[in-house]
Amino acid sequence: MYNRDRIDKVIRLDTELINIVEEAFTDLSTKQVTMPPIMRIDVPENNGEVDIKSAYIEGLDSFAVKLSSGFFNNPKMGLPSANGMMILLSAVTGEPLAVFADNGLLTDLRTAAAGAAASRLLSREDSHTAGIIGTGSQARYQLKALMNVRQIEKVLVYGRSEEKAEIYKREMESELGIPVEIKTAREVVENSDVVVTTTPSTEPVIEVDWLHEGLHITAMGSDAEHKQELSSQALEKAGLFVCDVVEQSTRLGELRSCSNNEVINSAVELGEITSGMKKGRSSYDQITICDLTGTGAQDTAIARYVYQLLDTKEDDDHEGS
Amino acid sequence: MYNRDRIDKVIRLDTELINIVEEAFTDLSTKQVTMPPIMRIDVPENNGEVDIKSAYIEGLDSFAVKLSSGFFNNPKMGLPSANGMMILLSAVTGEPLAVFADNGLLTDLRTAAAGAAASRLLSREDSHTAGIIGTGSQARYQLKALMNVRQIEKVLVYGRSEEKAEIYKREMESELGIPVEIKTAREVVENSDVVVTTTPSTEPVIEVDWLHEGLHITAMGSDAEHKQELSSQALEKAGLFVCDVVEQSTRLGELRSCSNNEVINSAVELGEITSGMKKGRSSYDQITICDLTGTGAQDTAIARYVYQLLDTKEDDDHEGS
Repeated sequence: MYNRDRIDKVIRLDTELINIVEEAFTDLSTKQVTMPPIMRIDVPENNGEVDIKSAYIEGLDSFAVKLSSGFFNNPKMGLPSANGMMILLSAVTGEPLAVFADNGLLTDLRTAAAGAAASRLLSREDSHTAGIIGTGSQARYQLKALMNVRQIEKVLVYGRSEEKAEIYKREMESELGIPVEIKTAREVVENSDVVVTTTPSTEPVIEVDWLHEGLHITAMGSDAEHKQELSSQALEKAGLFVCDVVEQSTRLGELRSCSNNEVINSAVELGEITSGMKKGRSSYDQITICDLTGTGAQDTAIARYVYQLLDTKEDDDHEGS
Repeated sequence: MYNRDRIDKVIRLDTELINIVEEAFTDLSTKQVTMPPIMRIDVPENNGEVDIKSAYIEGLDSFAVKLSSGFFNNPKMGLPSANGMMILLSAVTGEPLAVFADNGLLTDLRTAAAGAAASRLLSREDSHTAGIIGTGSQARYQLKALMNVRQIEKVLVYGRSEEKAEIYKREMESELGIPVEIKTAREVVENSDVVVTTTPSTEPVIEVDWLHEGLHITAMGSDAEHKQELSSQALEKAGLFVCDVVEQSTRLGELRSCSNNEVINSAVELGEITSGMKKGRSSYDQITICDLTGTGAQDTAIARYVYQLLDTKEDDDHEGS
């Protein structure tokens, strides 16, 4: 069993991780993947829920089972709402190989890596201004991941709480060494090349009128039946709508609120682009949108990767001693 | 994280455990229980499967998530087919409380305890001859559990492999100090007061003609769409058909092969009897059958129990040092 600190010491949010998560999307489109529907256990008495995800990708010798929980009375007790752990199982013998008591770290990283993979594929190569909607932990991880794939020179951020936006600005400026400006949501979208929405919103946070030529948006907030970050009109205006898994986006993501069959039928999965089966951005002026709901395939990819890193690190430790 | 040896040191297959598992059945019938359908991940390349079960029982402060796997190429590699682990989560905060890398031990024990609970409720109190069909690990656990609730003086056993039946006889005679006789399946059933079937059979192992007045049968082998131990006629002949969960028995257990609506509609759940809502055996001569498919509620019950035992044991250890 590895705890969060141990994992945090070996894993980096870098292009290697982004490549590995991107590969999981390719696998989803090109290989036989067993990804059962999410198992959900509700604990209504304590305003809590536990989700269990898993995915086995044909040919790999291991796969992950992930437990993630949200208990929304926790903050009142001074505890974080979210908890999580992953178990890596051998796909050859079924034996448990490792338990990662990562407390959601691997989920945060694989989600951010997926965002960066989407921006690398879909945003203009010369994107220099990043717009971030939201000021929580994914607002931080997504920006850091994005900086691996685009030369970001300026960040525009919008959050409902001005105080949290200020903290975000200070932290990111000091950590990343680039200017961060607090703006309205409209100003963020209108003046950015690539926008990432990271909110738990239940209604659109971006208006269709704000979309401009060449913009790319990654919406990673919606992952449940009641959440939504983009309006149906925004999806219609985009020249290309991409998502991680169409079935999930239709059930839990941005396609849920979309009644336009043309959009639904022309939705492309990320893996279809990463595998070369379909085209990404087709012109400099095209508006592109990518909706991420999160997949067990990403969990399997990052769990396998961190297991290998821990193994290598331990070998190094042995050599050093 | 606790491994199998650590768990094996604190837990006993005794009446306390049987009571605790019985209570889980009462909970299933009297409390709000969230028990999502089993999540299954197939790994066809390696002839393997992983099942994930969970159940949250209203009012309890923790619940279990269980991973159990069967990889049927393992024996060729000198490894057991089955693997398993349980994770105990706080139902108050969602935090993981313990990981039991028990390798299936807790499942074996809770399954045997359920069998004993069924026999205690349904078999004649003066049952002295136990019939065991099958010679695997559950054939051992079920007998040991049964001896907690009935004064068993003689055991009749049938297994397809005579060699394994011989080993079973020697082991049980030496361990339990009672005579074990190897018989045909027919002889076992005809001459026993209480019979436990513990096979992975896909067709009936007991003929309807063998059933006699006062007999109780617990069938615990069938837990999948292709398995069956009892014929539809046997179910019809019984005066009382009980199961752990009707929906599961209909899908995975003995009710699956039963087309007689009268049997299906009069099926009683164990918890309805343990809670006093319905009657068990109604006469000395009644034939009773209980079908067990296994429930997440039992997993939650035994995981909570062993967690408490480990905690108490550690306190004891402290006192001793």
